[in-house]
Amino acid sequence: MSVSFVIELLGTVAFTISGAFSAMQKRLDAFGVIVIAFITAIGGGTIRDVLIGYTPVSWMRDLNGPIVITITAVSAIFFKKYLKNFKITLFLFDALGLFTLIGIQKGVDAELNNGVCIILGTITGCFGGVLRDILLNNIPLIFRKEIYATACIIGGGIYFGLRHLIDPNWAKVIAIAFICGIRILAVKYDLKLPVW
Amino acid sequence: MSVSFVIELLGTVAFTISGAFSAMQKRLDAFGVIVIAFITAIGGGTIRDVLIGYTPVSWMRDLNGPIVITITAVSAIFFKKYLKNFKITLFLFDALGLFTLIGIQKGVDAELNNGVCIILGTITGCFGGVLRDILLNNIPLIFRKEIYATACIIGGGIYFGLRHLIDPNWAKVIAIAFICGIRILAVKYDLKLPVW
Amino acid sequence: MSVSFVIELLGTVAFTISGAFSAMQKRLDAFGVIVIAFITAIGGGTIRDVLIGYTPVSWMRDLNGPIVITITAVSAIFFKKYLKNFKITLFLFDALGLFTLIGIQKGVDAELNNGVCIILGTITGCFGGVLRDILLNNIPLIFRKEIYATACIIGGGIYFGLRHLIDPNWAKVIAIAFICGIRILAVKYDLKLPVW
Repeated sequence: MSVSFVIELLGTVAFTISGAFSAMQKRLDAFGVIVIAFITAIGGGTIRDVLIGYTPVSWMRDLNGPIVITITAVSAIFFKKYLKNFKITLFLFDALGLFTLIGIQKGVDAELNNGVCIILGTITGCFGGVLRDILLNNIPLIFRKEIYATACIIGGGIYFGLRHLIDPNWAKVIAIAFICGIRILAVKYDLKLPVW
Repeated sequence: MSVSFVIELLGTVAFTISGAFSAMQKRLDAFGVIVIAFITAIGGGTIRDVLIGYTPVSWMRDLNGPIVITITAVSAIFFKKYLKNFKITLFLFDALGLFTLIGIQKGVDAELNNGVCIILGTITGCFGGVLRDILLNNIPLIFRKEIYATACIIGGGIYFGLRHLIDPNWAKVIAIAFICGIRILAVKYDLKLPVW
Repeated sequence: MSVSFVIELLGTVAFTISGAFSAMQKRLDAFGVIVIAFITAIGGGTIRDVLIGYTPVSWMRDLNGPIVITITAVSAIFFKKYLKNFKITLFLFDALGLFTLIGIQKGVDAELNNGVCIILGTITGCFGGVLRDILLNNIPLIFRKEIYATACIIGGGIYFGLRHLIDPNWAKVIAIAFICGIRILAVKYDLKLPVW
């Protein structure tokens, strides 16, 4: 089991918990919580796969994802009280950067333009949360308050700026670190994009 | 015209009527009612087809579906008063089980894992209704009140448990009967999944 | 740069502005406005491409679209005051007819049935707006008030009625003119489809 594999599973766990908590706040039944958690975790990657024609989509090819998601969602329901105290949000930052770079890599593999790859990365990182919010009948959080997506786009730009200058894997690590850093600073200093 | 063909059309009619009624309750115009009815009837199968890469999607290949849906939706508008008295809900149970098994079969044909096939069956049975609710700006019913999806998953499990033991067609019939049965019992005794 | 290319870009600009304005009315942040504008402009075509299996979807293949959309959305944010006075709505009519006929052509190229092609045209013309409304947590405008989609369907029917009788390009121009005409008359005389 490689390091990157474990990291990807941790990212999936983080997204699953975020989906499960939003669903429990809206008082959905157990099945609803699991489905929303599932869609939050695989939604971004699924939209990406459908848009580039990589079908059957990723989670149908590797069952580790669905199994981890189901176990995590069920655990979130049973251990709700204890989980509250985790710093879920901090945990999520890594998942955001990670998923963004996974999405960018898929775009590169499909030989798409760099700009399109950054969009695919942003979709992978952010659109699980968009689907979660639509299903729970909220205006997606990403469009209202936070700078998730801006962080993904900047991180994507950094990756493409660096990958021919240094080892591409290091370019990825730096991009992920930037995405996490921007998010942490934004939360800490309550940075927001301007609203009109 | 085979028996299974007629049964599938009846299922399509049931879903179409459910979509048309929801749309009329929200006082959409005639076109809106027809579109919502259409999406309710073909939505689950369309999402399934897109996820596994079976494109152009099913309803584009066989026009019987779109024609039946359009006629049914227009009829629902004109005969609204009379249709109210039908036991629409009972009628829908069969469609749910039926669509679930159609979705499972598509997954089996695409040589996907059994667990993924059950998810595809559940999507086929339930996500037309999810799209209907999203378009009408409701939190999807499936996540709030009913045990549609749980019934689909149990039925799918029964199918895969039985299909190597008995004739696969009988396994399907038994699975559909279970899905219907669970739904009827749930409505009759007001069974619900626990909420947190 | 051909005439049809310029016309298509103008249509994209119109849709982008419509999306940007809806998003600014809901007081989204700058990024949210750009994303909603983007999805409004490419959403209909993207759903069409996914349904027929034309992937990677169109906007990933030709970067002129994404570039024009981004510039237009950013401009809409900065020049909001001045743009208000434009007759945006009139401008949009052409985009609607144009996008519908582009969608129909894609269906014809994929050798799909005429009825399916008309549906694809209507999706191309209207579903960018549907996605915009879903993301902004409104019941899609198309289902409530206006006769956009009806105009698209009638225009599509006219195209298929004429294209073997006269030059297909003229059939397209006439169909687009009809779609615009129906929309203009509907707005002017406040025509609506009946509601039940």
